[in-house]
Amino acid sequence: MMEFTLNQIAHILSGEVRGDGNQKISMLAKIQDARPGQIAFLANPKYEQFMYTTQASAVIVHRDFQPKKEIHSALILVEDPYSSFTILMEQYHKMISFQKAGIEQPSYFSETATIGKDGYRGAFSYVGNRTTIGNNVKIYPQVFIGDDVVIGNDVILHPNVKIYSRTRIGNHCIIHAGSVIGSDGFGFAPQEDGSYKSIPQMGNVIIEDDVTIGANTVIDCATLQGDATIIRQGVKMDNLIQIAHNVEIGKNTVIAAQAGISGSSKVGENCMIAGQVGIAGHLIIANQTSLGAQAGVSKSIEEEGQRLLGYPAIDIKEYFRSYAVFKKLPDLNHRLRDLEKKVAEQQAHSIETTKNGQN
Amino acid sequence: MMEFTLNQIAHILSGEVRGDGNQKISMLAKIQDARPGQIAFLANPKYEQFMYTTQASAVIVHRDFQPKKEIHSALILVEDPYSSFTILMEQYHKMISFQKAGIEQPSYFSETATIGKDGYRGAFSYVGNRTTIGNNVKIYPQVFIGDDVVIGNDVILHPNVKIYSRTRIGNHCIIHAGSVIGSDGFGFAPQEDGSYKSIPQMGNVIIEDDVTIGANTVIDCATLQGDATIIRQGVKMDNLIQIAHNVEIGKNTVIAAQAGISGSSKVGENCMIAGQVGIAGHLIIANQTSLGAQAGVSKSIEEEGQRLLGYPAIDIKEYFRSYAVFKKLPDLNHRLRDLEKKVAEQQAHSIETTKNGQN
Amino acid sequence: MMEFTLNQIAHILSGEVRGDGNQKISMLAKIQDARPGQIAFLANPKYEQFMYTTQASAVIVHRDFQPKKEIHSALILVEDPYSSFTILMEQYHKMISFQKAGIEQPSYFSETATIGKDGYRGAFSYVGNRTTIGNNVKIYPQVFIGDDVVIGNDVILHPNVKIYSRTRIGNHCIIHAGSVIGSDGFGFAPQEDGSYKSIPQMGNVIIEDDVTIGANTVIDCATLQGDATIIRQGVKMDNLIQIAHNVEIGKNTVIAAQAGISGSSKVGENCMIAGQVGIAGHLIIANQTSLGAQAGVSKSIEEEGQRLLGYPAIDIKEYFRSYAVFKKLPDLNHRLRDLEKKVAEQQAHSIETTKNGQN
Repeated sequence: MMEFTLNQIAHILSGEVRGDGNQKISMLAKIQDARPGQIAFLANPKYEQFMYTTQASAVIVHRDFQPKKEIHSALILVEDPYSSFTILMEQYHKMISFQKAGIEQPSYFSETATIGKDGYRGAFSYVGNRTTIGNNVKIYPQVFIGDDVVIGNDVILHPNVKIYSRTRIGNHCIIHAGSVIGSDGFGFAPQEDGSYKSIPQMGNVIIEDDVTIGANTVIDCATLQGDATIIRQGVKMDNLIQIAHNVEIGKNTVIAAQAGISGSSKVGENCMIAGQVGIAGHLIIANQTSLGAQAGVSKSIEEEGQRLLGYPAIDIKEYFRSYAVFKKLPDLNHRLRDLEKKVAEQQAHSIETTKNGQN
Repeated sequence: MMEFTLNQIAHILSGEVRGDGNQKISMLAKIQDARPGQIAFLANPKYEQFMYTTQASAVIVHRDFQPKKEIHSALILVEDPYSSFTILMEQYHKMISFQKAGIEQPSYFSETATIGKDGYRGAFSYVGNRTTIGNNVKIYPQVFIGDDVVIGNDVILHPNVKIYSRTRIGNHCIIHAGSVIGSDGFGFAPQEDGSYKSIPQMGNVIIEDDVTIGANTVIDCATLQGDATIIRQGVKMDNLIQIAHNVEIGKNTVIAAQAGISGSSKVGENCMIAGQVGIAGHLIIANQTSLGAQAGVSKSIEEEGQRLLGYPAIDIKEYFRSYAVFKKLPDLNHRLRDLEKKVAEQQAHSIETTKNGQN
Repeated sequence: MMEFTLNQIAHILSGEVRGDGNQKISMLAKIQDARPGQIAFLANPKYEQFMYTTQASAVIVHRDFQPKKEIHSALILVEDPYSSFTILMEQYHKMISFQKAGIEQPSYFSETATIGKDGYRGAFSYVGNRTTIGNNVKIYPQVFIGDDVVIGNDVILHPNVKIYSRTRIGNHCIIHAGSVIGSDGFGFAPQEDGSYKSIPQMGNVIIEDDVTIGANTVIDCATLQGDATIIRQGVKMDNLIQIAHNVEIGKNTVIAAQAGISGSSKVGENCMIAGQVGIAGHLIIANQTSLGAQAGVSKSIEEEGQRLLGYPAIDIKEYFRSYAVFKKLPDLNHRLRDLEKKVAEQQAHSIETTKNGQN
């Protein structure tokens, strides 16, 4: 259990205390749920009501906050309450993470592998030959790291992450439980008898700095030696994602759960890829592309900053406009049939009239 | 190998033996496949033909069953043959599961953790600090359980299940191999330079009683301390499912494989969610909602008991009616073009006629 | 590090050396990236330009290749440069894989289990009771193999593969990290109170020869004892795929990532199932069926060799033709409305004309 005084917190946040700066808080909570000994924040005005009923010992508020009723909590005045709260959460998280240290036994560490200082190696973790690992790396229990892997500093590998041989991981990366990095790409050469021969996959995966990868996600290695599947700096990936061989994901792109990107496609920077999206192979996706949930992309997207939906994906507004009509298609069909009947009648009538006119 | 006499089985099922009650059977099988020493059941009349050819030593049949030809198997007469068979299967399964007991070494069990009686802890399993585990809990090999976890009685954790710290699991739960419970929710605060900052995820996951979770499924923890992602009593989840942070799944809801539910959505009770369905974030899904395969839900469903399909999901019958027309859209387009031509001709003709009339 | 002389390589490929046959190469690379000491290949004429600039010590070329400029690399002349390169890659891969041998400790191997010769058992791997394993099987660290499993020869189980009890695996199979074979099928009997009772899953999984399975894929066991979920010879499966209970996948069928096949469906031979495809339960899919990405199949496909797309899946060309009109639906709707207006006007006009004519 960690405890801070309000004065300490105010110091971290460059804020100012209103109330007893020496009282201690031990936990962060939502303003509507907080109990004594906890600290909350007020950023969104629609939560202001809770300001007057909360049991929180302290609340982080905007520098200009003027209470409309009596309040029972101490205040910490800051420039930006939400980001202040985020900073506190990070601080707290970091301290929890720092608690993991040392080496638990049994664990397997190759004689030819090396690791920096301040690390943690959980029980049943495995580190292969000639692998080099930086400082402050947390290797949770049952993690597998193959041969000739290179890992930077300040990396967290959650339980049972599996890193195949030759993978390279930068600094400040987090990989969640059960994810697989560097498995064989899906490459098979069709044979004359209808069977397939495996094409050996001999490239690797490169993950740059500041990348976060969710749980049970899979990133395949590239096919040829010297080639890599590349996840660029700052990419954030959710759970159960499929990244095929030779894919490249651009800087700061965000990918939601269960999306899949097929072989050799290159996704640009700062893209937003929603859940269950599928991208076909050998495509180029421009920077700042936003793909809505379940969209399917079957050709390259060249113009930057588009928002797309549907299969094959089209402009999101156009998709919704078309879908609005799709929902009325049976009605449209009836209207068309009615019209066909009417026009046929008019045509008959017109011939009749013409005939009559000719009479 | 377990063996029962027919008399013992009849006793378990409150049934009656026709034939030698002392003969022993050792296995359950389908009536068309059964061999001597095995027991089968006849519930569906269309399988009655096999009754006269089966090699099963005994068949469970309805109390009123009247054979039309000679039969070679003993019979056990019961009220409901299918549910009787289910009971036997359960019994058999339970006995197999009870065979797993004791502690295999090496395994890791924190000094500050506690566990009840009749448990099994497989080799290479890991139990963290201050974790408390109930009676008759089967922890298969390579399972990871973090710190401060609470697990009830009669729980089965299959090989390599990964339970993050602070998770709570009720009684009679089963979690299949490779599933991850409590990984970080996918939360990132965009920064001015286009990068993202991780929002620490400090809540937990609560799984109530009688929940079954398939293999390689992921359930993320809630964002804030004190908050939880909640799986209510009796929920049945299949494989490779994504449950994001702060989601709540209502009592007895069933979710099929590869479905994904985004952050903070609340799914009602007794819903049926088919395979590969996607539900967007911050939605409320009414009780008894049924979502067809691959449906995408982008806004809350307020009326109970609806059946929906498509993206965005609409009433399933309407979807199929619209899709029937969708398949004929090129034809519809041609008909419309034809009609436009005809109407234009008529218009020309009409002007002509009018002109002629004016002449 | 392995090294071969060009003469050795030419011998393996039944090719001919042009240049110094005694020089050694140690690595395979792409012609545009190769460095001294490496060997590349030239199969596609559009890469011929690199032939004259590459630093590769040797290049594998077609027997009839005629350089247009000076070249600095030795040549190996063969009938088919691409397949020759594939053979070399395979050879290389096999040698890497052969480097893994012996038994790492701690690992768990039941007294009643048996294993053939030339195997590898990684640290923290687990082999259950009465399991029998063939020759040259590589069991990577943290693999779990349950009781009564049968595994053939030349099988590779990557880190943390989980094989449930009673599974049978043939020869020459590869299963990638984190995949689960034999987990319980998703079967629940609804009870009167709205809850569900688990139906025990007592069948198994049978994987025939030459099957490759990607990472974090799940294959459930069959429901009844004596029944099996079957993956036929030569099937190639990608990552994160769901195969439900009692499914059968026909010979040489290829399934891409994140596809899902529901309970009891039988997929034919030589099918191509693209990424994120969903197939409903109890269906039969004809041989040589090709399903486009994200297609949803809701009824059996009886005619062989079809290419389908959409949900429910229809002929791919028809889907694209319909989708082309779908994108113009708002326009179609307007055209229809215009037409309705015109026809109504003409009708009014026609009545008017008729009236006038009657005057």
